[in-house]
Amino acid sequence: MNSQIALQEIIDFLGSDVIQVFGTVENVYVKHLKPIESADEETLDWVNSIKRHKQQIVENSKARVIFVDQDVQYTRAIQSQNKTLLLVSNPKLCLLKVGNHFFVESLKPCVHPTAYIHADAKFGENIYVGANASIGECIIGNEVIIYPNVVINDGVVIGNHVVIKSGAILGFDGFGYERDESNNLVKFPQLGKLIIHDSVEIGANTCIDKGALSNTIVGFNTKINNLCHIAHNVVIGKNVIITAQVNVSGSTTIEDDVWVAPHASFRGHQKIGQGATIGMGAVVTKDVPAGETWIGNPARKFKP
Amino acid sequence: MNSQIALQEIIDFLGSDVIQVFGTVENVYVKHLKPIESADEETLDWVNSIKRHKQQIVENSKARVIFVDQDVQYTRAIQSQNKTLLLVSNPKLCLLKVGNHFFVESLKPCVHPTAYIHADAKFGENIYVGANASIGECIIGNEVIIYPNVVINDGVVIGNHVVIKSGAILGFDGFGYERDESNNLVKFPQLGKLIIHDSVEIGANTCIDKGALSNTIVGFNTKINNLCHIAHNVVIGKNVIITAQVNVSGSTTIEDDVWVAPHASFRGHQKIGQGATIGMGAVVTKDVPAGETWIGNPARKFKP
Amino acid sequence: MNSQIALQEIIDFLGSDVIQVFGTVENVYVKHLKPIESADEETLDWVNSIKRHKQQIVENSKARVIFVDQDVQYTRAIQSQNKTLLLVSNPKLCLLKVGNHFFVESLKPCVHPTAYIHADAKFGENIYVGANASIGECIIGNEVIIYPNVVINDGVVIGNHVVIKSGAILGFDGFGYERDESNNLVKFPQLGKLIIHDSVEIGANTCIDKGALSNTIVGFNTKINNLCHIAHNVVIGKNVIITAQVNVSGSTTIEDDVWVAPHASFRGHQKIGQGATIGMGAVVTKDVPAGETWIGNPARKFKP
Repeated sequence: MNSQIALQEIIDFLGSDVIQVFGTVENVYVKHLKPIESADEETLDWVNSIKRHKQQIVENSKARVIFVDQDVQYTRAIQSQNKTLLLVSNPKLCLLKVGNHFFVESLKPCVHPTAYIHADAKFGENIYVGANASIGECIIGNEVIIYPNVVINDGVVIGNHVVIKSGAILGFDGFGYERDESNNLVKFPQLGKLIIHDSVEIGANTCIDKGALSNTIVGFNTKINNLCHIAHNVVIGKNVIITAQVNVSGSTTIEDDVWVAPHASFRGHQKIGQGATIGMGAVVTKDVPAGETWIGNPARKFKP
Repeated sequence: MNSQIALQEIIDFLGSDVIQVFGTVENVYVKHLKPIESADEETLDWVNSIKRHKQQIVENSKARVIFVDQDVQYTRAIQSQNKTLLLVSNPKLCLLKVGNHFFVESLKPCVHPTAYIHADAKFGENIYVGANASIGECIIGNEVIIYPNVVINDGVVIGNHVVIKSGAILGFDGFGYERDESNNLVKFPQLGKLIIHDSVEIGANTCIDKGALSNTIVGFNTKINNLCHIAHNVVIGKNVIITAQVNVSGSTTIEDDVWVAPHASFRGHQKIGQGATIGMGAVVTKDVPAGETWIGNPARKFKP
Repeated sequence: MNSQIALQEIIDFLGSDVIQVFGTVENVYVKHLKPIESADEETLDWVNSIKRHKQQIVENSKARVIFVDQDVQYTRAIQSQNKTLLLVSNPKLCLLKVGNHFFVESLKPCVHPTAYIHADAKFGENIYVGANASIGECIIGNEVIIYPNVVINDGVVIGNHVVIKSGAILGFDGFGYERDESNNLVKFPQLGKLIIHDSVEIGANTCIDKGALSNTIVGFNTKINNLCHIAHNVVIGKNVIITAQVNVSGSTTIEDDVWVAPHASFRGHQKIGQGATIGMGAVVTKDVPAGETWIGNPARKFKP
């Protein structure tokens, strides 16, 4: 990785994403991605569409090859700098695609000898399991990455293309107690499963409990960051983003496309409607209607 | 587990908890617990006493056997459905007892070969230690469950019937620094112990530090959920419930029967009085008198 | 450890820190440090300079040897109690120095056989690696302590005298997603490093991600407590104190000498100025100027 890549290869890879090329392609190579302030001649650079003064950014960049949108002109100044501009509709997205394809090294499937895998665990194809992971009698799909020191309990069901980061703890008993006649705490039986759908990412040291009587479910393509707590019976939809240190208490439902900022917390038995946005540190004690933004402690609808 | 259980067996197990039985017992079996919306004929169902329309819930349930309280009548409609009602004073509690006894599989005591146990650690009887746990020179009572990848440092003292969930980190140095003459940080010596009393549960990825000069103590039957931080010299009483992601800073005392909601945080050197309730996301910067409920940032007494 | 230590040894160790000694030194020994309420005759005691009624504390202490500041008089009452007072300018700091030198047992360098270390990892001298740690192809300096079940990814660079507590997860991909033309989430390539400078402490179950295009950096002598999340591209200066469960979102800069209370959270791309203080549970959504104290949700400048 990180050796020279011919610009022509990148253009071919992006196909119709490249609307037009300004400048030389032949014998032009890039070597790495860099933050704009440390870009050099071998950097594949880009100008984020949301920036102001894009023309100036391109002129000042030390990179030779730059993704730009239609707001940037291939001026004489840029021509004289011998730069090549790749006109695309979304420069950042093109950089991501190229970065992931050409610059990110992928893990080779293997099960590390120090990992413990239950004899009856069912594994799909091309699974990576890192060192000192502990995996119970569970079912795991294809192309799954399980980083070192992850713990997966018996009974967890995991789809394809799932990434589970180190220290994540999946599928243990939820936290449910009831007081008996003598005021002692009696545990609610935890008999459900944890079901994780395809293309989910689970962050480092995140804990997701199994269901009590029903199941805990994480939907397709949902991404959960580090140190989150997802309690029993929680149902999370598709394409949800849950950032770091979020708490989702028991039996709460989070619908598709919701975005949750760090340190937010949800009371149990709530419904967070499709496409809602929850602010950083929000303490959410009520249902949130679809599409709304809620912030604060206690959380209230944000009025801009 | 999860095979058919004769209703008579359940009635015998509950003894005097069952006030009266309405309907057939002989040749009636249950097979599983289910959430009410997916109950079927083989489900052991119950109607929570706090619900409204309990009579209707019983009539609509697809289950054949249902725990009910005295508000529910054994009407002709129910008789014609061929249902058996078990009249008890607390249907939810009876379900818990039966669920834990008949449906929850218990772990067989064993020490997993990939766990590391210090040669001088003292173990009681019937201990379960999961894969890749790391256990120092500590003292552990009887009937203790230590899930995979738990870390227990030297010097920790753990009672009987304690459950420690995966990724919990117990008994390491607290976080105490003092600036020296040159403004450098000097660590306060951490020489105390961590003492965990009987019947405590410690959640996944929760961290409990040992004491500095005195000890950190977790009292009898206290339950702590996932991803909590309990600092040095904290003293927690009996029957305390600490839910997920709570922070208890150094030298704070939490008295018996306190209930702490997720994401609450306590400043150090505080006293939280017996039976207090602390709301979700509360930022507690003062002592809380016994029995009071405090919420908000900064936390204040809740006035309903 | 913890056997008798001659008072003369302690006086010699402290050198010019001891301004004057009142009372007997010969044949006087101390055996341990204790919290003031349980001090006994063999305790090395101290009176914190910030306390009131210091004279009375000294008179009531059961300890024979006590660090005091210039506010305490060597009265006849104290003489008749046969106490020895060590007059110093900062009693607490002297206790720390003596405690760390005489009473804290240091770990002997070794690599536990159950730890996994990548064959190409580069280790300095006197490294301790605990049980079930998982260490990738990284570079580690001298005198580093890595407790059990720590996970360090490939490409992390760690200085000298660094302490990494159990369950910490270092140097994995940050959490950055962009929506593509079909509203699917595409990951931002995570190609940077994580660089940890000398004398840093990293708490148990804390997660620090590597940079995306630039690096994540933790500066000299910075101390981070348990269960924190430090995102990609974060740059933390020197002598910073980050207490438990703090979230620092991506690309935020925290300058030297900042102090962050538990459960605080920072939005991304912020700058927290030198010497700032951030309150418990603060939700920081703006840049914080140097030296200021901010508290609340959302955080605002504290006006005393």
